[in-house]
Amino acid sequence: MEEEQRLRLSTVYAAGSLPDAEAWEALRRKTTAAHAQLEEGTGTGAVMRGWLRFPAAYLESDEFARVQSAAAQIRKADALLVIGIGGSYLGARAVIEAVLGRHYNETRKVFPAVYFAGNSISAKECAELEALLEGREFYINVISKSGKTLEAALAYRHFRAVLERKYADQPGEAKRHIYATTDAAKGALRAQCAGADWDARRFVVPDDMGGRYSVLSAVGLLPIACAGVDIAALLRGAAAAQAAYAEPGEDNACNSYAALRYHFYTHGRKSVELFATYEPSMTLFGEWFKQLFGESEGKENKGLFPASVTFTTDLHSLGQYIQEGERFLFETVVTFREPANTLAVQRCAEDGDELNYLAGRKWHDINRAAFRATALAHQKGGCPSLHIALARQDAEALGWLIYFFEKACAISGYMLGVNPFDQPGVESYKNFMFALLGKAGSEETRAALAAAYGNDIFKED
Amino acid sequence: MEEEQRLRLSTVYAAGSLPDAEAWEALRRKTTAAHAQLEEGTGTGAVMRGWLRFPAAYLESDEFARVQSAAAQIRKADALLVIGIGGSYLGARAVIEAVLGRHYNETRKVFPAVYFAGNSISAKECAELEALLEGREFYINVISKSGKTLEAALAYRHFRAVLERKYADQPGEAKRHIYATTDAAKGALRAQCAGADWDARRFVVPDDMGGRYSVLSAVGLLPIACAGVDIAALLRGAAAAQAAYAEPGEDNACNSYAALRYHFYTHGRKSVELFATYEPSMTLFGEWFKQLFGESEGKENKGLFPASVTFTTDLHSLGQYIQEGERFLFETVVTFREPANTLAVQRCAEDGDELNYLAGRKWHDINRAAFRATALAHQKGGCPSLHIALARQDAEALGWLIYFFEKACAISGYMLGVNPFDQPGVESYKNFMFALLGKAGSEETRAALAAAYGNDIFKED
Repeated sequence: MEEEQRLRLSTVYAAGSLPDAEAWEALRRKTTAAHAQLEEGTGTGAVMRGWLRFPAAYLESDEFARVQSAAAQIRKADALLVIGIGGSYLGARAVIEAVLGRHYNETRKVFPAVYFAGNSISAKECAELEALLEGREFYINVISKSGKTLEAALAYRHFRAVLERKYADQPGEAKRHIYATTDAAKGALRAQCAGADWDARRFVVPDDMGGRYSVLSAVGLLPIACAGVDIAALLRGAAAAQAAYAEPGEDNACNSYAALRYHFYTHGRKSVELFATYEPSMTLFGEWFKQLFGESEGKENKGLFPASVTFTTDLHSLGQYIQEGERFLFETVVTFREPANTLAVQRCAEDGDELNYLAGRKWHDINRAAFRATALAHQKGGCPSLHIALARQDAEALGWLIYFFEKACAISGYMLGVNPFDQPGVESYKNFMFALLGKAGSEETRAALAAAYGNDIFKED
Repeated sequence: MEEEQRLRLSTVYAAGSLPDAEAWEALRRKTTAAHAQLEEGTGTGAVMRGWLRFPAAYLESDEFARVQSAAAQIRKADALLVIGIGGSYLGARAVIEAVLGRHYNETRKVFPAVYFAGNSISAKECAELEALLEGREFYINVISKSGKTLEAALAYRHFRAVLERKYADQPGEAKRHIYATTDAAKGALRAQCAGADWDARRFVVPDDMGGRYSVLSAVGLLPIACAGVDIAALLRGAAAAQAAYAEPGEDNACNSYAALRYHFYTHGRKSVELFATYEPSMTLFGEWFKQLFGESEGKENKGLFPASVTFTTDLHSLGQYIQEGERFLFETVVTFREPANTLAVQRCAEDGDELNYLAGRKWHDINRAAFRATALAHQKGGCPSLHIALARQDAEALGWLIYFFEKACAISGYMLGVNPFDQPGVESYKNFMFALLGKAGSEETRAALAAAYGNDIFKED
């Protein structure tokens, strides 16, 4: 079975915490119903399912070819500054680091550096990025559906001005160094990029997928391609997963994963899901995972809280808690079967560190032993491990993994009874922020704040 | 009051979730008792309180002067490779990034790059680091109390061999490029660094402080100094905190913080503490925080689960969950009052992004408005915010903050009734790992594993 070769879900390290046969039957029925809701569009937020059948189709699209051309142009420069936040940031950075390593900007040989701005309001971070770009030819890829998201808009205004000063004596040159990924028809950024001269440098944030489901669209693909990752392979992996998980059934690992995490949450009294890997280069992928699941499920006072760990690093920090703290954790571990390289332990004449018993063994195999030992220890301590094994840490496997989690997340949301595609809670702080900043239209919130907290609330503390 | 100027703990954003006067009295008594246990050494693990009165004394020590000399030597090279894991890794990287920014290896002008190895068993990561060091003069600072911690020992064996190959025709030169921080008298690494020629290149991991409390010893100070951070200022900040929090009392912010988080845990049904900042360069500091509190409190099936977020970045990922997911979260927010720079929003003729209402405003002030708005929104949503304000993001403030959290953590552990200085659960996975790897002495665990899981457990899956 192809899927078995591409992604394997194993529950061996969760033995003892798994549903019995009867519970499993009930879970299957529930998962299959949620799968049908998703596939048939009968669930809440159905209009946002664009990502569901996107990967296979997009490979053949005109825009995909345009993304490749744009990336070829940008790769002639020394750096790309990606401006975006949330789903317009995490997915691209996660894939780039997962494939090229977390030091990719320092180890790169031929491809441009790829930096990310517009994902905070830190003056310190902005100044550092500006210093990094000083004296180098760089492009901007600004990614924002509305063009009004505060963080991205602030950074775009700032770095666009940097380009304009740099090319002050070359009319049009600053603009030629900007690529925009935005709404197909409307919005502030779309309006700023009107006109035929933008046609080759403008890409679409699809209407039918939220930010956290958008990494395989132009949103993620353009920066990923610029960094030198094979985006066709990424999409092929996702398209293969799309085919593999199209039908519900006993062998649908995506549904099984959704069923098991639902079981842990509802019957196993687990409240926190730890996304775990044994590769530091997967740390940002953990951040992407946290957005996907946290934003999709965390509503109506429900949902597993998503946390992430990078092992074995964090066995020396959070390991104690996972082993013996509050017993509300389970972990979802992603590993890769094939080694990235053949690095092995060398024999050492004096053996002062007593590692000679490992001489000749591959680091990869030692790392996998650490994984298995940890899963055994955590299960024994009451933290069961689900294990997702992929063949290798490359673009194709990551495409598969992205689609796997996206679909499992949507099904999980329906099982939980929430809309997995909205994020109503995100507006709350924005409303207060605009009121504190005195934005037009926020007068009512200002009055409410003054009534509740007094006028001191508008002062810096 | 000096403390008020250096660190301010504010509870305004937790109003409504705070203890009433009677509960506060009981909390005060409990906190004061824990404070006395710590100061007087009557609590469990008392022998590990070396960090408590360390900062002021260490500033005057011979070793501190030797750390400064060693750093001056290492700074002549192009790179330093720090080998260590857990407390021998996180603190140093956290301080370096917090002061110099997260891109410090790319923005640096005069100081060496500082890379961190030996904190995972990833073959991919190791190969990347080796590629980064190719052709550059670099030093190693290996940090391990025993010299047998697997991750650090594997990396040290590997990179020591790299140095030996590099200086194959210059006897003694490889060794001269290695600095060791290890036990004062015993252990495998200490034995490897015996002899007078190591005297100037060997530093002490104190016996009386665990890894997570060791960042202000040579463990953290040497790498931090090499990166170009003022370690005297770091220690001065910690020493000032040491003086400020020596006595219990209403105005001891450290005790108040311990009391409030205990209240949230025991009476507020909060299970997860979110460490939050609004500076991306503080992200690694969040990892240090997680180790400190998670490893100190997470035992006997108790303790707040420590998670960390970097805002506003993560308002666009975990923000939805924090606002509306399970209501078991509170957040501890660290901010800095003074701006890192004067970056301000520029006016733009067309105002396509509608940001002109912010023209002339500093990014720093907008970021602070985001903080206050978020705290208001989260409190309204049932996630109260404690707020720790420091004057500025520099070495002195970070020294203060480190000591503040260390002491609050120790007091918290005593309030919870656990030993805040041990980590018994960390051995569990190690025992299984050594059994899977076939290390001598693990025969009994191997037999137990075979009995429980069959011999398949020893096969790669």
